[in-house]
Amino acid sequence: MPNEPKLIPGPSFFIGKGDDNGLISFGSGQPDLPPPPEAFDALTKYKGFKYGLIQGEEPLRAKLAEEYPAAMPEHFVITNGASEAIDLVLRSISKPGGKVLLPRPYYYSYPFDVMYAGMTPVYYDLAEGGKINYEQFEKVAPGCRAVFINSPSNPTGTVQDIETLEKVEALCDKLGLYIISDEVYKDLIYDRENYLLHGKHVVTVNSFSKTYAMCGFRVGYLYSQDAQLVSKVIEMKTHTSMNTSVAAQIMALAALRVPASYVEKHVKIWKERRDMLYAGMLELGLKLWKPEGAFYVLPKLKNSGRVVSDLYYKYRMITYDGAWFGAPDHVRFSYALDASKIKEGLRRLKKFLKTEYREY
Amino acid sequence: MPNEPKLIPGPSFFIGKGDDNGLISFGSGQPDLPPPPEAFDALTKYKGFKYGLIQGEEPLRAKLAEEYPAAMPEHFVITNGASEAIDLVLRSISKPGGKVLLPRPYYYSYPFDVMYAGMTPVYYDLAEGGKINYEQFEKVAPGCRAVFINSPSNPTGTVQDIETLEKVEALCDKLGLYIISDEVYKDLIYDRENYLLHGKHVVTVNSFSKTYAMCGFRVGYLYSQDAQLVSKVIEMKTHTSMNTSVAAQIMALAALRVPASYVEKHVKIWKERRDMLYAGMLELGLKLWKPEGAFYVLPKLKNSGRVVSDLYYKYRMITYDGAWFGAPDHVRFSYALDASKIKEGLRRLKKFLKTEYREY
Repeated sequence: MPNEPKLIPGPSFFIGKGDDNGLISFGSGQPDLPPPPEAFDALTKYKGFKYGLIQGEEPLRAKLAEEYPAAMPEHFVITNGASEAIDLVLRSISKPGGKVLLPRPYYYSYPFDVMYAGMTPVYYDLAEGGKINYEQFEKVAPGCRAVFINSPSNPTGTVQDIETLEKVEALCDKLGLYIISDEVYKDLIYDRENYLLHGKHVVTVNSFSKTYAMCGFRVGYLYSQDAQLVSKVIEMKTHTSMNTSVAAQIMALAALRVPASYVEKHVKIWKERRDMLYAGMLELGLKLWKPEGAFYVLPKLKNSGRVVSDLYYKYRMITYDGAWFGAPDHVRFSYALDASKIKEGLRRLKKFLKTEYREY
Repeated sequence: MPNEPKLIPGPSFFIGKGDDNGLISFGSGQPDLPPPPEAFDALTKYKGFKYGLIQGEEPLRAKLAEEYPAAMPEHFVITNGASEAIDLVLRSISKPGGKVLLPRPYYYSYPFDVMYAGMTPVYYDLAEGGKINYEQFEKVAPGCRAVFINSPSNPTGTVQDIETLEKVEALCDKLGLYIISDEVYKDLIYDRENYLLHGKHVVTVNSFSKTYAMCGFRVGYLYSQDAQLVSKVIEMKTHTSMNTSVAAQIMALAALRVPASYVEKHVKIWKERRDMLYAGMLELGLKLWKPEGAFYVLPKLKNSGRVVSDLYYKYRMITYDGAWFGAPDHVRFSYALDASKIKEGLRRLKKFLKTEYREY
């Protein structure tokens, strides 16, 4: 078939690809605005080179502990991004035959990480607006080893209601399930403060990548009051990667110390972009949930694999196939890019919708 | 019992502990001499912050390819130290019921990494002088999924004969076994050049930690001509940690570009220290294999757990229990420390051998 599209195999095809030569990237979820200059400054002064503590540098964990109520430095493990935190937690709690409950759409790595850890992902669909339907959750959670919560969500940008999260906490506590709460977008919520899930077996996963624009440096962490789990994670990390790069940790500590205005300014910018892209998509007649946090929208677009391929090869736009997130016939757009590029992207998308797409 | 020693639980107890306050560390295997200044200089100029390619920065892989005959940049994956390379390879080749053959004594992480990957470690003992007995190897290798080679060895410091390595290559090729060749000490051999194992299913694991004193920055890599394996590793790393910290990769590239004299100068120093510690231990009447590379000796010391505890709590010396390496009744001493400290350490060891140790 002459028009057979070259399908993009998955996100790793795009990761690390720049947005030059007229290419507009709505792809990878990474800020275009730079980290605080203090983070780079810290790097210029650093002269250490020896192994660090596997658990992470003590001053960094002490500073993080100030951010969480009743937290202590020993409740944290600094990791190679949130990805490694999730991987280590899953491997540490793995049981043969263990099931892990994922909301759908989900961040594309979750099912892989669950399977790599020797467990089985099971799913429930998010209801209208991207919200957890608690009645449904209550039915599927029993018998699982762990459940994932991801609010604000990648790829939907939606934020879960506090009452729902409280009910989820209570249920998991009663059933003795681990909650892996991926809160990497906790500082990027537009309408309210983040709600920190808590409980005996809650593991909070976070990162410096989104809040401080440090994706490439790979520094994240997990926080848990479950001492036994934390100790298992440290033991495992001793053999699978050792300490997280000390250079990245030095930068992270400097970033944590900058005034709150750094993050506030960014959130204001994300909100403006969100408004622009959301309004622009509604105008194009697309159906999508209104994002309340993070920097993603997930409009419905039939035959999404072909859409992503056509947008890339014919319109020079990177987008991510919803199918990678368990949402076929949807396409994820990250709006972590300049307003002028969002505008140009919308223009190209309009053209695509009026031409190729009508013939699908 | 009043004299019951407080046993040290494992290497993670010591990792990241400094050698201040009179504490002498023969523990962690990390150079005390600093990285090339060019590595730090590169860091001061770096202003990138976005995700890098999961496989690793292209200029770094291109430079590495120059170091290996017939290698191409696509044969490499840059990892969070050699540890992550080993972990990813084992997870990528894992089969239910798979067995992985380890020489004993082994680097302490190998059995854990094999088990974390869902396989089973099996062992054969190194013969006199720390050498592989090929007749024995030939009997135990068939039926395994992979074999580890570690020359120069941590913890013994011994280097395998080239004829043996060639026979191992041929056998594994014939049997279709993966060889995971941990060559992180390849640049620290005192008597000859390193022999690079090669073959269709050979995975060479290496690191910038030892050659360039960059332990804390965590940058290592794997090299393999097995395209399918490399691609599996990249796919897995996309979900388990993403790119290796770009700051660390920038440093590694700068280090690779320094003149060979940097490494030669270090090797000369390691050799002097090796001679000093080896001679000192023989003088104390200890039994040990003469190390030909790396920076470890592994003398026989009965009741090694108690030795390590007593040396730490009573003599302010960090040493590693041979039992952690599959060599009970041995103690590993790293000589990656200043000659004056080696001398003082030998003095303390002499005192210990003449007093406590005689009453064990």
